[in-house]
Amino acid sequence: MLERLKEQVWEANLGLPRHQLVTFTWGNVSGIDRQAGLVVIKPSGVEYEKLRADDLVVVDLDGKVVEGRLKPSSDTRTHLVLYKAFPQIGAIVHTHSPWATVWSQAALEMPALGTTHADTFYGGVPCTRPLTEDEIKGDYERETGNVIVETFRQRGLDPQQIPSVLVASHGPFAWGETPMAALEHAVVLEEVCKMAYHTLNLNQNAPLLDQNLLDKHYLRKHGTDAYYGQTANGFPR
Amino acid sequence: MLERLKEQVWEANLGLPRHQLVTFTWGNVSGIDRQAGLVVIKPSGVEYEKLRADDLVVVDLDGKVVEGRLKPSSDTRTHLVLYKAFPQIGAIVHTHSPWATVWSQAALEMPALGTTHADTFYGGVPCTRPLTEDEIKGDYERETGNVIVETFRQRGLDPQQIPSVLVASHGPFAWGETPMAALEHAVVLEEVCKMAYHTLNLNQNAPLLDQNLLDKHYLRKHGTDAYYGQTANGFPR
Amino acid sequence: MLERLKEQVWEANLGLPRHQLVTFTWGNVSGIDRQAGLVVIKPSGVEYEKLRADDLVVVDLDGKVVEGRLKPSSDTRTHLVLYKAFPQIGAIVHTHSPWATVWSQAALEMPALGTTHADTFYGGVPCTRPLTEDEIKGDYERETGNVIVETFRQRGLDPQQIPSVLVASHGPFAWGETPMAALEHAVVLEEVCKMAYHTLNLNQNAPLLDQNLLDKHYLRKHGTDAYYGQTANGFPR
Amino acid sequence: MLERLKEQVWEANLGLPRHQLVTFTWGNVSGIDRQAGLVVIKPSGVEYEKLRADDLVVVDLDGKVVEGRLKPSSDTRTHLVLYKAFPQIGAIVHTHSPWATVWSQAALEMPALGTTHADTFYGGVPCTRPLTEDEIKGDYERETGNVIVETFRQRGLDPQQIPSVLVASHGPFAWGETPMAALEHAVVLEEVCKMAYHTLNLNQNAPLLDQNLLDKHYLRKHGTDAYYGQTANGFPR
Repeated sequence: MLERLKEQVWEANLGLPRHQLVTFTWGNVSGIDRQAGLVVIKPSGVEYEKLRADDLVVVDLDGKVVEGRLKPSSDTRTHLVLYKAFPQIGAIVHTHSPWATVWSQAALEMPALGTTHADTFYGGVPCTRPLTEDEIKGDYERETGNVIVETFRQRGLDPQQIPSVLVASHGPFAWGETPMAALEHAVVLEEVCKMAYHTLNLNQNAPLLDQNLLDKHYLRKHGTDAYYGQTANGFPR
Repeated sequence: MLERLKEQVWEANLGLPRHQLVTFTWGNVSGIDRQAGLVVIKPSGVEYEKLRADDLVVVDLDGKVVEGRLKPSSDTRTHLVLYKAFPQIGAIVHTHSPWATVWSQAALEMPALGTTHADTFYGGVPCTRPLTEDEIKGDYERETGNVIVETFRQRGLDPQQIPSVLVASHGPFAWGETPMAALEHAVVLEEVCKMAYHTLNLNQNAPLLDQNLLDKHYLRKHGTDAYYGQTANGFPR
Repeated sequence: MLERLKEQVWEANLGLPRHQLVTFTWGNVSGIDRQAGLVVIKPSGVEYEKLRADDLVVVDLDGKVVEGRLKPSSDTRTHLVLYKAFPQIGAIVHTHSPWATVWSQAALEMPALGTTHADTFYGGVPCTRPLTEDEIKGDYERETGNVIVETFRQRGLDPQQIPSVLVASHGPFAWGETPMAALEHAVVLEEVCKMAYHTLNLNQNAPLLDQNLLDKHYLRKHGTDAYYGQTANGFPR
Repeated sequence: MLERLKEQVWEANLGLPRHQLVTFTWGNVSGIDRQAGLVVIKPSGVEYEKLRADDLVVVDLDGKVVEGRLKPSSDTRTHLVLYKAFPQIGAIVHTHSPWATVWSQAALEMPALGTTHADTFYGGVPCTRPLTEDEIKGDYERETGNVIVETFRQRGLDPQQIPSVLVASHGPFAWGETPMAALEHAVVLEEVCKMAYHTLNLNQNAPLLDQNLLDKHYLRKHGTDAYYGQTANGFPR
C-alpha cells in the first residue's frame, strides 16, 4: 500500500540524522497521497537507524490508522491540520534542529537578511503566537497545527512561498511538494537561522534584504521565469 | 561478578565520546546493583578506546574496592553520595561537556525555554552553590555530592523529574534508572544547554516555558498518562 | 578541450563540500585559460557528488557556451566580469560559506585582527555597497561583478593582495592564480571570518593588526622575499 | 639520528589535524634531546598527510640545520628561545587553533573559570604584550620567543604549571615534557578557551575559579600528592 510514497518518506526520515537535524528521535517526516486521502508518517519514538519503510504508519485525514503495527508519531494531528489547510503541500518535516529551535524559543520571526534566505523563502519565516492554556490542555497537537494555519492566514502568507514556520517555545515545521523537498527546506531553514543569528549578533543594524533582491533571488529559482539549475537533462533542478 | 551491569556501564562509557560529551578521559559512568549494594564504575584516567568491560571497578557503598585491578574514578565518592541520597536512580554520568560546563561556570540555573527541554526535564536544571573552603579542603569529592543533594532538597526537586545538575565552577552530573538512560539525559542536557544559551543571546527577554506546556510535554512522555513512543512491541520507548 | 583545466576546476569544486564551504549546490568554481580566452565553470545546480569533469561547461568571455551539454552556473556572468577586470587571476570560487556570509549579511568589512589573516590577506577584506534597484533589475549577475570591481578600484586594492571580497547581503567570492589557490583562499577567508567574529564579540576594542605585523606576515609568505615553505624540493609551498 | 624523538614529534604533528587544531599547515611541533642539545622540528609548509618522520629537520640550539633535506619551520627560532629559557620543557606545539587564536587576537589573558581549566593550568593563561616595531622588523621569530619568556618572568609564572601562552594578535604556543604532553596541553587550551569565551558571554560576572578549587584540582593531578589516574599498571596516567 502506497509503496512509493513510503519509500520517499522513509528516505526523508533517514535524511534527518544525515543532515544533523535531529538528536535521538526528535523529528519526523510524513507524506500525503492526495488522491487516496492517506498520510504516511513515522511511528512514534522509533530510532532512525532501526526504521524500515514498512514500519511507517498509514493514517487517514481523521487520524485513523489504516495500516501499520506501530503507533504513529505523537505529532500526527499537527501534520493532518496542515495537510487539510494547505492543499498545495505533499510532505511535512518536523524537527528540533538547534538553530531553528533557538529562534522558536526566542519567539521571533527570522528575517530575510541575505540571498541564501531568498533562494528558498520569499520573506521572513514567521513565528506563531504562544498557545493558550485552553489550547494546550485541549487537543494540543491539533491546536499546534491550528496556530500555524492562523499565522499564515492572518499575515496573508503563501505556504508555497514560505515553506516553513517556527512554533513559539517549540521548534520548526517545514513542508514541500515531496518528502525530499520538505527535507531540503528544513535543511535550508536551519542554515539560514544559524546565519541570521550571527549576522544580528555581529551587527544589530544589519540591513533587511532589499525587496528587489528578494524578488530577484526567489524568482530566479521559483516560478515560470526561473533560470537556476538544469531543466531537461536528468539532473535535479 | 555483575556481568550484565558491567556490560551496560561499559557501553554507556563508550557512549560519552560517541556523543561528543568528552575530551580525553573527562567523564565517567557508573551503575548500581541495589540488591547487592555494589557500584560498577569507570577506572580513573583510562582512555575510552582502551577500556574493556572487565577494567571496570566494583566498589561498595563505602567506596571499598570489591573487585578490579585498577583505581576507581577519582569522582567515585560523589557518585556514592548520590546513590545513597537518591534511591530511585540506577546510574550516574559525569562529564565536562562544553555547553553544560559553560552554564556551570556561569553559575546559573539553566531555565526551561522550550519543549525540547520539557520532554526530559520537568523544570529548570539547577546549579549548586559554590563549595566552601572547608568543603574543598576536606573530603572534596564527597562534599561535591553533598552540595548536589542539598540543592535538590532545599528546592524540593525530585531527582527523577530533574535528572541532572550543574555543579558551580565545575560541570554537569546526570542520572537515570539505567546507564543508557543516564547517558541519554547527559546528551539532552548538553543539547538544551546549547539552545538555551543561544536563545537568551538572541533575545534576553525570551519567554520562560509556559507551565501548561511544561506539564504537557513532560507528562506526555513520563508517568502513567504518557502517550509518546511505542509501549508493547519491542521498540524502545 | 582544456582537459587539464577541467580536471583542476573539477577538483576544486569537489573541495567545496570537503572543506564544508557549501550546503547542497551553493557554490561554484571556475578557471580560465588566458591564451584561449575560455572559461571552464560548474554547471548550474548540479550536486558535487554527481559532478564529473566532463560535465563542466566551457564559455567564452562573452558568456557564449563553447562546449558542454549543461547550462553554466547562474553566476557565470559575475565570474566573467572579474576575469576581464583582474587579469592576474586564473580561477574564481563563489560560496555561501556561513561565516563569510554572516559578514556579508552584516554588510561590514572584515578587518585584519591577527597574523592568520595577514598570512593570506594584505589588509581587511572589503564588503561591497548594496546594489541599486536598477542594477538588481538589470543584468544582475554582471552588476554583481561590476560592484566588486568598483570596490577594489575605489579603495585602490590589489586583487592579488586581497584575493577575496564580501558581496553585501549575499556572500563571498575568492580567487587565485589556480583553482586550488582560489579554493585555499575561500577556506582561509571562512576561517578568519569565524575568528574575527568571535574576537570582536569577546573584546569590542580588540586591536587592529599592527601595520608592521601585517607587512611581516604577508611578506614572509608572498613576494620575492618570502621565506615560508619549501621552494625547490617538490613539496607544495 | 634521534629516531625515537623523531617518531614522537611526527606523531604529535599528525595529532594536530586529528584534534582539529589546524587548517592546512598552520601548526608545528618540535621536541628536544637535552643531552644532545638538538631539536627535531616540522619542515616549513609541508602538509601533515604527506609528512614522514624522516622529513623532520634536526637543528642545534643556534638554529643550524644538522640533518634534513628540508627547511625547518619558519617558527623555529621561537621554539629555540623557549627551549633555552625553560629548561624543564621537552616539546613545543604552535597552532592557530580557533578559540585560542580568538583570545590571542582579543589580546586578553584567558582566566581560570572552572575545574576543567584547573586540571591542566594552575592559573590564567597569559597573553603577551604586542611586539614593538623594532622587534617585528628585527629578528621577528626570536623576538616572539623573547616576549613569551618576558611574560612568564615578569609575572613570576612557572612554565610547568602554566604550559601555554597566548601571543597577542597571533595565536597560542603550548609545551610539555614530551611531544604528546605538549599536544595534550594544546588540545586542553583550545577546549577551555572555547568554554571561557561562552561562559563570559553568558554571564559577564561569572566567578573566577576559587583559589582553593584551583589548588585542589591542579594538585590532585600534578605533583607528589596527585591521586588522579592509574600509576603502576601500564595505563597512561
